[in-house]
Amino acid sequence: MALHANSDIRAFFEPRTIAVIGSLNEWGGLGYTAIKNMRQFNFAGRIYPINPSYKEALGLKAYPDVSAVEDQVDLAIVITPKQKVPGIIDQCAQKGVKAAIIVSDGFAETGESGARLQRQIVEISHRSGLRIMGPNTIGTLNTANGLVTNPYFISYDKIYKGNIAYCSQSGIVGAQGQPLKDQAYPISKMCDLGNKCDVNEVDLLNYLSQDPQTSVIAMHIEDVKDGHKFIDTVRKVAARKPVLLLKPGRTERGAKASASHTGSLAGSERIYDAAFRQAGAIRLNTWREFWEIPRVFINQPLPRGNRIAIITFTGGVGVASVDTAEECGLAIADFSPATVSRLSKLSPQLARNPVDLGPIIPVTDDPLPVLEETIAAVLDDSNVDCVTATLYASSGAETPVYMDIFDRVMKNVTKPVSFWIYGTELGPMEDLSRQVQGRGLPAYFDIELAIKALATAAHYSRVKSSLNQGATGILNTRNS
Amino acid sequence: MALHANSDIRAFFEPRTIAVIGSLNEWGGLGYTAIKNMRQFNFAGRIYPINPSYKEALGLKAYPDVSAVEDQVDLAIVITPKQKVPGIIDQCAQKGVKAAIIVSDGFAETGESGARLQRQIVEISHRSGLRIMGPNTIGTLNTANGLVTNPYFISYDKIYKGNIAYCSQSGIVGAQGQPLKDQAYPISKMCDLGNKCDVNEVDLLNYLSQDPQTSVIAMHIEDVKDGHKFIDTVRKVAARKPVLLLKPGRTERGAKASASHTGSLAGSERIYDAAFRQAGAIRLNTWREFWEIPRVFINQPLPRGNRIAIITFTGGVGVASVDTAEECGLAIADFSPATVSRLSKLSPQLARNPVDLGPIIPVTDDPLPVLEETIAAVLDDSNVDCVTATLYASSGAETPVYMDIFDRVMKNVTKPVSFWIYGTELGPMEDLSRQVQGRGLPAYFDIELAIKALATAAHYSRVKSSLNQGATGILNTRNS
Repeated sequence: MALHANSDIRAFFEPRTIAVIGSLNEWGGLGYTAIKNMRQFNFAGRIYPINPSYKEALGLKAYPDVSAVEDQVDLAIVITPKQKVPGIIDQCAQKGVKAAIIVSDGFAETGESGARLQRQIVEISHRSGLRIMGPNTIGTLNTANGLVTNPYFISYDKIYKGNIAYCSQSGIVGAQGQPLKDQAYPISKMCDLGNKCDVNEVDLLNYLSQDPQTSVIAMHIEDVKDGHKFIDTVRKVAARKPVLLLKPGRTERGAKASASHTGSLAGSERIYDAAFRQAGAIRLNTWREFWEIPRVFINQPLPRGNRIAIITFTGGVGVASVDTAEECGLAIADFSPATVSRLSKLSPQLARNPVDLGPIIPVTDDPLPVLEETIAAVLDDSNVDCVTATLYASSGAETPVYMDIFDRVMKNVTKPVSFWIYGTELGPMEDLSRQVQGRGLPAYFDIELAIKALATAAHYSRVKSSLNQGATGILNTRNS
Repeated sequence: MALHANSDIRAFFEPRTIAVIGSLNEWGGLGYTAIKNMRQFNFAGRIYPINPSYKEALGLKAYPDVSAVEDQVDLAIVITPKQKVPGIIDQCAQKGVKAAIIVSDGFAETGESGARLQRQIVEISHRSGLRIMGPNTIGTLNTANGLVTNPYFISYDKIYKGNIAYCSQSGIVGAQGQPLKDQAYPISKMCDLGNKCDVNEVDLLNYLSQDPQTSVIAMHIEDVKDGHKFIDTVRKVAARKPVLLLKPGRTERGAKASASHTGSLAGSERIYDAAFRQAGAIRLNTWREFWEIPRVFINQPLPRGNRIAIITFTGGVGVASVDTAEECGLAIADFSPATVSRLSKLSPQLARNPVDLGPIIPVTDDPLPVLEETIAAVLDDSNVDCVTATLYASSGAETPVYMDIFDRVMKNVTKPVSFWIYGTELGPMEDLSRQVQGRGLPAYFDIELAIKALATAAHYSRVKSSLNQGATGILNTRNS
């Protein structure tokens, strides 16, 4: 457990100067690749390559060790064989480096000899005040300054700026493992905590709760270093920002696998689970949910209740989606008499929830006003707290016209909407999805996920208001 | 309920001659589009456009009505205003047409006047022996002969041939609503039953059970016309081919929505659910599962038990996937001592399930033999019944080399494998997915789905052996 008085981990995300300590071989050297990645994403600070065998790398002057750098070094990225790491960390401490990300692996995660090496590092950290992330991590990413400490090949050159912080204890949550450009996730920060020998989930939550770019926190964790502290921190953060947790250990065997992967005790994970929920953390079940559900919290108000309206172009999907809504804690809204009357004027078939526009569109001379009035009526209904609407994509579909309707209708609306996109070609579906996301609205290829996202928002809405009223008793609500 | 002695519905899927009765307007006329679609997919039979206002359409001679066609007509596709439908169906009956698909809507699904019209059609059908599919349907699709009765614009020109039959009570399961080309679903038949005024799910199951091109049946149904007959039929079919059901009504409100959509009784749906499972039908929960899970049954043996091995390149995903496996009824296989020893020779870290190759690959001079030996060892283990393996896709990844390994290793293996594909760009991920599917192997972008697919195969393996032993008592096992 870390004992730093200094709980400021800003240098991991907002360094002005970085030393990259590792191989500068231009054919895949990890130090070289880390620098290349930062260049690719236009990192705003100064970079110092460190390697005694090189005079320069990527046009930058290289230094034999970190003490040779004349400048103050905020962050060191350490990517060397593990045996060298303690010595390098010692040099960083002496130089007054604020933060070090240890990418190297082979420490506590591999057994006792690695654990011994890791303890040496922790001792230096405690003695000197140098904060350490890792080992066994790809570190951090910050879209505000182009920081990406990842030393692996990244095949794209753009990461979308936004307000989601994705945190993990695994390298899978990184630019080398996700189609971040194609999926256009609106990201503020990313972080892989690795072995958490010093910086842990509590430090990270505290930092992200204060980060003005972050409005929702998606966190994958396998173990928790200090359960009580974590729960206190979640309670504090969740009162302001949603904290979504993907945490293995829902099953006995899962808890055991997780414990064996992290070296923690399995028992404690199960015990803390109820406490996590009690503190206001919202549990996710799949990686798809981890990546996709946070979108619902960006640029949209929280639902005031759990009553959903569903608008589809296909009755079969609408009917099947009722089960999904109910199973994840939403209620199918009963339309008000005013809405029933407004929809009945368009067609008596439309005046029920889920609304199926399928039979109406083909027999209407100009379906667009029908579509617009339907969406407006549903959104206006005070019995409706949130809406899942459908968009159809094909190479022939008139996307801009659809989106204009939503822009008009949603202008004065204070309810969240999620979109289900379907169609006949993946290309246009992906284009349309990016257009919708570009407006800050969440779009999904699975209607179940579109509904689950709103259910998560409704759940967080209850959590937030309870936490802000100081009441925690009702937090232990269904979270499926 | 239909009372046809003739339960042969072959003419709906294997007609040699088709009459298309509807608008032949070349700017979106539905009859015109239906013919155009059949041309696009190279329908092997003869097509007769029927419309008194046209002399020809798409280079084909048009006839004023079906009686004017000199040829025998196997199948009529009726796409006219609803009022005209009974007259046309009468003409078809007099002509000796075997089967009619009524695309037109506005019948029982819209209220009493539509229901009256529908009863007229049913009377003609019962009197004459003319079998009717619909109304309110997009009909059938058969990849063996290029038949596609869908009268809506389809933006692509290829549907992959294979062994999955997708059936539905909704137009969403159709070529105008799914990216069938991009997703490369290996399809034998598709069918939308619509209002099921005559041909119903029992007829369809009987036909598909005999269809040599179909080896797995995915069926979306909202109601069942004759519960006892359906259950008897499922039991018979499921002994030979998997019957996967997506059926709304898991929740009270879902059952109510389903009943209101189809005009059936909600109560009966809930009552029959346990009986469906008892008969060997396997219940699915989402549309994604409906489309993706059948792939696991194509070209692969069934698992002999429920013990899964998981191979990943990232420990975090491996650990999280243990919960998924356990939750859907699989057990994490305990490797045999021989496998533990074989894997330990590569690295002691590899000798546990899930196997995480992540830390090994980067520090190995030539990772490919390590990958191959790992996969071979896991597949050889008699404690392992099925395997989920990982593939990484990026613009730089060596896909052919990976796939060569699997081709070699799987040559003599009689266990099913599913693949989880991840990577940094959707394009290469989708390409790789199609390559894997092209080998008849199931690939998924979500590891949870890859595992769920194998769980479904393991479940069906138990169902099949029970049904074939005549024992039904153990069928009511967990099916999450």
